[in-house]
Amino acid sequence: MVTRVSFVAGERGEWTIESMRTIDGESLAAALRLARHEDDAFHRDRGVWTIDGVRSNDRYVTRDEKARLVASSPALGRADATCAALIPIRKTDEWWALTQDERRAIFEERSHHIAIGLEHVPAIAPRLYHCRDLGEPWDFLTWFEFADRDRGPFDDLVGKLRETEEWRYVSREVDIRLVRSQESL
Amino acid sequence: MVTRVSFVAGERGEWTIESMRTIDGESLAAALRLARHEDDAFHRDRGVWTIDGVRSNDRYVTRDEKARLVASSPALGRADATCAALIPIRKTDEWWALTQDERRAIFEERSHHIAIGLEHVPAIAPRLYHCRDLGEPWDFLTWFEFADRDRGPFDDLVGKLRETEEWRYVSREVDIRLVRSQESL
Repeated sequence: MVTRVSFVAGERGEWTIESMRTIDGESLAAALRLARHEDDAFHRDRGVWTIDGVRSNDRYVTRDEKARLVASSPALGRADATCAALIPIRKTDEWWALTQDERRAIFEERSHHIAIGLEHVPAIAPRLYHCRDLGEPWDFLTWFEFADRDRGPFDDLVGKLRETEEWRYVSREVDIRLVRSQESL
Repeated sequence: MVTRVSFVAGERGEWTIESMRTIDGESLAAALRLARHEDDAFHRDRGVWTIDGVRSNDRYVTRDEKARLVASSPALGRADATCAALIPIRKTDEWWALTQDERRAIFEERSHHIAIGLEHVPAIAPRLYHCRDLGEPWDFLTWFEFADRDRGPFDDLVGKLRETEEWRYVSREVDIRLVRSQESL
């Protein structure tokens, strides 16, 4: 079975929403907190809004790239990783009409998505969820955890990615920044 | 939004089940008929069993292969296509732990999956649905329609695929053969 995730925005959750910036397309409703529920089933509490996803197989990385990513990517939940970001992304129909070889060429050979990512591990802990096949209005959910001192490098990471050819195919993107909640609600 | 499909087995449906052969893994319960509902939503009638899927983006074909497939694949619903097959497939965890380049190499360079398929169009009309990310006990659903005179070539197609290296990674497969129902139930 696939592992499912529900990001539930509302009054409760381990993460306090610090800012929500709509980069492209429709925005998301404001909320105070965010909870990330990773489980066998989608979470039943739907809050102000919920985005569901699944941990699925890799789509673009080669074995060599994966070996480098696995070797240098930190785990989620590090004690000093008090900052996080949830960035849901939708790509255009034009992107999805491309074949695998065309998407891969844009993704890595021309946009260096993995290479840019590798410059920012081990500071930034990433996790990717897929939701296109679920019929969500998003294709991917990217989740990142990092220490307060690494806010700058994280801004640099997303800034570099947004300048790539790959990002011309992004039709909707919201950049949600979070800090670990001081007290549980 | 993705297009969804529900294959509902039971007492009703456009297709009469002629045979169900379990090739690998757990079998499916016997039923008389099968309906293929392709729609915006999954079908609510769940019958004896239902398998849901989605039409999603291509995963392995290159632009060149896709051009050849599109040029020679017939549409579903041809008047003389009175035979069909539904073959749901699940692959092993080992397959899904492979990276994209490794899966592609097994799929086409070593198993010639697309090349074998191209030998059998335009006689066989194929349609592929994905369901791994939906949490179904299947990864793909393959649907084929063909004329009565093309039963032999269809057997040849699935026989050749089952001999490939790719098929060593298939952990569950049921081969369901159907004929268009004479009367609607």
